[in-house]
Amino acid sequence: MDIVEQIKLFLEPRSIALLGISRQTDPNSYNIIAPLLKQGFQGKLYPVNPHTDEIMGVKTYPEVAQIEDEIDLALLFTSRKITPKILQECADKGIKAAIIVGQGFNDATDDLGKKLQNDITAIIKKTGIRVLGPNTLGTANAFLNFSLSFAEQYGLEKIPVGLVSQSGIFFGIINELRMLGKGIDLGNGCDVDVTDCLEYYEADPEVKVIALHIEGINNGRKFFQVAKRVAQKKPVIVLKTGRSKQSAKAAQSHTGSIIGKDEIWDALFKQTGLIRAHTIDEMSDLIKLFSHAPPIKGRGVGIASYSGGMGIYTLDACNKYGLNIAEPHSETMEKIVKAAPHWFNVGNPLDLWPIISTSEKSIEESLKDTILAFMENPAIDSVILFLAAWMENENTPLLLTEIISAIADAFPDKAVVLCPYGGWVHDVDIQIIENKLKKTGKVPIIPTPDRAAKALSTAATYYEFLQNT
Amino acid sequence: MDIVEQIKLFLEPRSIALLGISRQTDPNSYNIIAPLLKQGFQGKLYPVNPHTDEIMGVKTYPEVAQIEDEIDLALLFTSRKITPKILQECADKGIKAAIIVGQGFNDATDDLGKKLQNDITAIIKKTGIRVLGPNTLGTANAFLNFSLSFAEQYGLEKIPVGLVSQSGIFFGIINELRMLGKGIDLGNGCDVDVTDCLEYYEADPEVKVIALHIEGINNGRKFFQVAKRVAQKKPVIVLKTGRSKQSAKAAQSHTGSIIGKDEIWDALFKQTGLIRAHTIDEMSDLIKLFSHAPPIKGRGVGIASYSGGMGIYTLDACNKYGLNIAEPHSETMEKIVKAAPHWFNVGNPLDLWPIISTSEKSIEESLKDTILAFMENPAIDSVILFLAAWMENENTPLLLTEIISAIADAFPDKAVVLCPYGGWVHDVDIQIIENKLKKTGKVPIIPTPDRAAKALSTAATYYEFLQNT
Repeated sequence: MDIVEQIKLFLEPRSIALLGISRQTDPNSYNIIAPLLKQGFQGKLYPVNPHTDEIMGVKTYPEVAQIEDEIDLALLFTSRKITPKILQECADKGIKAAIIVGQGFNDATDDLGKKLQNDITAIIKKTGIRVLGPNTLGTANAFLNFSLSFAEQYGLEKIPVGLVSQSGIFFGIINELRMLGKGIDLGNGCDVDVTDCLEYYEADPEVKVIALHIEGINNGRKFFQVAKRVAQKKPVIVLKTGRSKQSAKAAQSHTGSIIGKDEIWDALFKQTGLIRAHTIDEMSDLIKLFSHAPPIKGRGVGIASYSGGMGIYTLDACNKYGLNIAEPHSETMEKIVKAAPHWFNVGNPLDLWPIISTSEKSIEESLKDTILAFMENPAIDSVILFLAAWMENENTPLLLTEIISAIADAFPDKAVVLCPYGGWVHDVDIQIIENKLKKTGKVPIIPTPDRAAKALSTAATYYEFLQNT
Repeated sequence: MDIVEQIKLFLEPRSIALLGISRQTDPNSYNIIAPLLKQGFQGKLYPVNPHTDEIMGVKTYPEVAQIEDEIDLALLFTSRKITPKILQECADKGIKAAIIVGQGFNDATDDLGKKLQNDITAIIKKTGIRVLGPNTLGTANAFLNFSLSFAEQYGLEKIPVGLVSQSGIFFGIINELRMLGKGIDLGNGCDVDVTDCLEYYEADPEVKVIALHIEGINNGRKFFQVAKRVAQKKPVIVLKTGRSKQSAKAAQSHTGSIIGKDEIWDALFKQTGLIRAHTIDEMSDLIKLFSHAPPIKGRGVGIASYSGGMGIYTLDACNKYGLNIAEPHSETMEKIVKAAPHWFNVGNPLDLWPIISTSEKSIEESLKDTILAFMENPAIDSVILFLAAWMENENTPLLLTEIISAIADAFPDKAVVLCPYGGWVHDVDIQIIENKLKKTGKVPIIPTPDRAAKALSTAATYYEFLQNT
């Protein structure tokens, strides 16, 4: 079985055996059957429990061997001591993929933990069963309506983003990372590793952007080769943690993984075209930008701001991150000058308020026409829009999201990034605006203009890399 | 009148004349009377309008000269051409403070704009009236329940933060900066400048933290002297924009202010003890940290995290920003080791989940006791807590906010920073948690651990500066 088919069993299982599953079903029991039923997972579930006939209406089996059907995936919640034995039983049943949720293996300080992980590795070698974990939240796939995480996830959406993580926390739980289409938590990574998952996402038509959280890897050479190949096809954003000796030690007791020097990683990023995110915020911004904007054609940027002061702030950030402030374009500027007060300085950054507040049209229509004219400038590859969220107001002739969508539609080759502010004034929820725009798939929302500038610059560097290789 | 008394007229007016006030009162008219009444401002309002007797039930006057009472502050919404004339009338009436809201003066490209601003300056020199603006949203004071901004502000809270800004947008409108106790928008700054306002906040017992947004200043020597003095008394956080030649040009057409080289500003920050915020996010984080945490005594930091992976991420950030990971303290660690699984590696960062999930106590009680023991370590000056927002759940024996408050109370000399995550799971709103903690005034919420580490490091540098001067 090739690696893509193998990883498919973890991400697209048609049938799952649940080992070590509890009879308890109260909210604090984290019984996985409840969310699986609630999420609408269409695959078959086979809970194994010798003490009952059913859990939440699902028929149980006393042991895995007695399940009559073929099983794609085994999910083990067993205590660490019996885990190797249960894994062996799964292999004996012919199961080819298993997820081990429990802790206390290579992440433990005692000899038993190491021994048990060695036992697991031996079973893998002997039987050919592939293992995700131990110490993992498992996998999630919004396209098939499931998350195997015992930590509930309401954030699953059918968006083209695939994540591989060495920690459950990056697995769609952090507020900033609510954009998971598919997710894999490697945990200790005793068998299935980041490279395997990368190959799966490479072949996956549902995934257009790949996000990796890496503490360390075991087979650097193979990772390098695969990463270099995949980066040519899809943007791969990487949050590399464990950057110092101190954190290497901590990672050892977290996932048991070995961490390379950070300088080596920096060289690897440069050579492969992997995109480095330095913080969670950056990772979130880059995932949004790559999944919602067209490829960035160049470093020319336009800035259109409801506020002159914020225009200058944005200009600072564009300068800092190596974007070029597009020279105002005489033809298109002419249109704006005509609509503006005669004393007003029309430029880039474009201060919108003096224009739209004195226009004969409505503020909303004037805003739309002004930005449309501004963006005709051929030197503008991307635009950062700093606009008031309260324009998402049903009493206005045009909603903010309608204006933004019209702009993105008019310039499909230019990246439009929206920085909305003041959502709390008039009780407008920026989240609502973001969700509406997400459906159009064209305009990322990034909270501040400096973060927008940094993300645009990072994306420009990636597309430059693609052109030069 | 000394400068503090003078600025008081702008921030603590007992009576306000409203010039150029419209009779229109619909929501899109931005009539300032509506929010002033709604906010509960207790001072007297004197609208001047020759076409009516009252606006929204408030008696109007045909001209300012006919107001019988003494007026602390005039607020001018007049068009630019008549503004000097109206300002003169205010001075003739004996008014000593005026705010000019309108645009089109030094911020304009035409000669008339410059001439009109010169006319205003001449009236100031001749009559002694002091002017805030032109091109300003005015002032706001939560302690007296008012904002003069025509852009509505629901974010006013009686918190000990005073802001001076050269742009209305920083004036409590940006989502990240919803923490304004008092605010002053300088606009063009033709008269009242950042130094004047700094002296006012210096003397203000209601303000413990000062935040400045500066594009440029006119009297650098005076600013330097005052800033150096004030920084010894209260933290002064500065967002300096207009950092390049390009942005200097843009600032010229925004507020007409002259911008110094960024290197000069960096030297000024070092010499005065002013605290530089490089981004809006940083400014927000620093304002929260300084207004909600005790002085930072040193660079020793503890990291306690619900997630091992995030502990490593936080460790990276602490290393990067020059915080010291406190050596585990044998005595206090002993208590934690006893409660943890015997195979578990108890250290700093402290991975909480394996301890609290296997405890005989409730998860919440175990969490509280574990962190309390962890913080007994004398090498810990600050702690970064990465915890699940869904613990703010009424079905649990202890709410997250109760746990956090108990920790802050037990260690009043140590800074406790909370990074809550996963608020959207179980529909818990992190904003609610933040508002509850804000009332205790002890624990800042900072969205991510890297931002928490950076803010703690910046604060430590400030307190080191105070000790060394």
